[in-house]
Amino acid sequence: MAQINENYLKLQAGYLFPEIGRRVKEFQLQHPKADIIRMGIGDVTLPLTPSVIKAFHEGVEEMSKKETFKGYGPEQGYDFLREAIAKSEYQGRGANIHADEIFISDGSKCDTGNILEIFGHENTIAVQDPVYPVYVDTSVMGGRTGNYTSGGYYNGLIYMPCTAENNFIPDIPDKKIDIVFLCYPNNPTGTTAGRNELKKWVDYALKNKTVILFDAAYEAYIADPDVPHSIYEIEGAKKVAVEFRSLSKTAGFTGTRCAYTIVPKDLMAYTADGKPLPLHPLWLRRQTTKFNGVSYPVQRAAAAIFSKEGKDEVRESVAYYMNNAGIMRQALKEIGFDVYGGINAPYVWVNSGRNIKSWDLFDRLLHECNVVGTPGSGFGPSGEGYFRFSSFASKENVIRAMERISKMNW
Amino acid sequence: MAQINENYLKLQAGYLFPEIGRRVKEFQLQHPKADIIRMGIGDVTLPLTPSVIKAFHEGVEEMSKKETFKGYGPEQGYDFLREAIAKSEYQGRGANIHADEIFISDGSKCDTGNILEIFGHENTIAVQDPVYPVYVDTSVMGGRTGNYTSGGYYNGLIYMPCTAENNFIPDIPDKKIDIVFLCYPNNPTGTTAGRNELKKWVDYALKNKTVILFDAAYEAYIADPDVPHSIYEIEGAKKVAVEFRSLSKTAGFTGTRCAYTIVPKDLMAYTADGKPLPLHPLWLRRQTTKFNGVSYPVQRAAAAIFSKEGKDEVRESVAYYMNNAGIMRQALKEIGFDVYGGINAPYVWVNSGRNIKSWDLFDRLLHECNVVGTPGSGFGPSGEGYFRFSSFASKENVIRAMERISKMNW
Repeated sequence: MAQINENYLKLQAGYLFPEIGRRVKEFQLQHPKADIIRMGIGDVTLPLTPSVIKAFHEGVEEMSKKETFKGYGPEQGYDFLREAIAKSEYQGRGANIHADEIFISDGSKCDTGNILEIFGHENTIAVQDPVYPVYVDTSVMGGRTGNYTSGGYYNGLIYMPCTAENNFIPDIPDKKIDIVFLCYPNNPTGTTAGRNELKKWVDYALKNKTVILFDAAYEAYIADPDVPHSIYEIEGAKKVAVEFRSLSKTAGFTGTRCAYTIVPKDLMAYTADGKPLPLHPLWLRRQTTKFNGVSYPVQRAAAAIFSKEGKDEVRESVAYYMNNAGIMRQALKEIGFDVYGGINAPYVWVNSGRNIKSWDLFDRLLHECNVVGTPGSGFGPSGEGYFRFSSFASKENVIRAMERISKMNW
Repeated sequence: MAQINENYLKLQAGYLFPEIGRRVKEFQLQHPKADIIRMGIGDVTLPLTPSVIKAFHEGVEEMSKKETFKGYGPEQGYDFLREAIAKSEYQGRGANIHADEIFISDGSKCDTGNILEIFGHENTIAVQDPVYPVYVDTSVMGGRTGNYTSGGYYNGLIYMPCTAENNFIPDIPDKKIDIVFLCYPNNPTGTTAGRNELKKWVDYALKNKTVILFDAAYEAYIADPDVPHSIYEIEGAKKVAVEFRSLSKTAGFTGTRCAYTIVPKDLMAYTADGKPLPLHPLWLRRQTTKFNGVSYPVQRAAAAIFSKEGKDEVRESVAYYMNNAGIMRQALKEIGFDVYGGINAPYVWVNSGRNIKSWDLFDRLLHECNVVGTPGSGFGPSGEGYFRFSSFASKENVIRAMERISKMNW
């Protein structure tokens, strides 16, 4: 008798975004003429930039001729892309990461989900609350938690509340943490961690043999020169941290699919009897056995992002979205919301200050002004009362959405 | 203290193909002028076909304009591709598979590796021997086996020997099997299973609540009209089987990356206390949580394969490779090898009949005539003495390789 993985039965009804989709669809059926503006899911709207498109076409063209055709590539990605990333994103910023420590993949969602496979089941896992749901759900699916509790938590996971009260910077809990997911710039709160904050975590990890899983998917949105772009800018981090980077929000690759993950060769974890072993060969073995690399033309397109032209184009797209964030911040402040994020991240995180629950605000915005956002409680219990707006809509739609919200009876 | 997944330490030195790569590289260093012909790894050499290239370019072009740009797509794949596959590959062949039972992915290697995640750890797993190493290695990495034994087996796995003695068709073992990997047309032996053989397995699975993981990556190479292309051509299979299909060998997508997996809605597995539950929602949850879909232009390219022109082009590529297989079969028979496969599959599986071990034959062929193949023992203990030639080289190289081998002193 084939048995299922019963951990899946612990999962709650649905991933946040399908539930949003369901409610929007239902509303649309009832109001087929409603002009809905979507600021919920963090999906980009600007097309791929010219230098990326050019390289993408060239990559396709290479696949059309026997002389330049590419079959199986290295599972870890082509050297031309790994080297471009090492140089542009790390070595140029004082973080000594080498090309062979970079694993090209088809998405940070995959990598942050799959990375737990190389760790044992005994580890305690800590997450920020609110949190990107993938870290929690993949922990549940992998049997690394207990059951769901009525408070909105899974037993066995360590939650670190991030609210306005602590400036969205959690204290390090006094429970022992073996693995911690940190996301900066943060999804969903749009807040960042400074150098001191990251140093605190790196020092903790060095002392406690903890591994930090550092999700830097929104790194391109950092404007403040004092905010680190990579955890490897902190001394000692190469010994304790994996870093995830994505081209999805950086360069509009949500539908094109390319990301990368850094597993430094100095990074250690331990056998049950305390023997240190490097994680790099384990992740290499995982990827070579269970993955076949990213599509060659996509890797060609991705490499263009790190060229001079590519960087200029990316900067322009990021500026466009961040201008949207600025418009939202101002409008939402003016109606008296408490407004966070949206300065070094494409997410504006608000609290209505009127004691409205997150899903109630979602329904009000959907029904009264046809604007879709993301209820903060969907990211975890400490997100209750909060709401996330993404800045990826068009400027025109952002302005219209804010006008509609401003006119509501608050 | 972060602990590693110690199951990784059970894995043997290396995946087969890296070891081949190492030996070839070493030989090349010693003999830099050697003209090496590669018939080892199953990688295609013909470029993508014109209709695929055209659609691929069109997909890229859509990504360049705001009006046609695609962000996040459905994780399960776009309907246009799922529907094309359902119609072309299943409904047209009497297998009633619906579009929403088809999950588009970036590779069958990923899917056959990841599928075990939705099954509990209590299941007994059976594999053919010799076997595509991914099924075994992912079972080991997932903690579903015991240790490696000196005989070349992992404790806890059930191996089903496939040799000339049983016509490469294993008897169903009398141990209880919960999950069985079957690969037809078979990699590495190039042999196929007929309708009766598959029916035997489906009936067994129906009776024992077994799940069949059916890898049909080489389906396009079936020439014999009596050989089923899909396990769903067998009555009852939708209740017991997952099927994996790949565009890698079918249409030269090894570097482009696209595959698909069928999880029928009727397919059940069980909770520990015997309650049946459909696997479709579990795999859907797995994919939506840990995967973000295949690159949109790649899906556009893939859909072209199922058009009239695409099918004609694919047929031509397959014929080219199968002509190579015929050349190999004849030449290798003439020097007195026992020759199998190569009729409904792109692999020719031989035994020298001279009591030469697989790796010794590998070294002899490499050193004496600079031809690279794959030692059968690399696929499992029952592959010892056998050797795999892939038919994906150019016709010219296949002819030259066979001439060189024929001239050796056997």
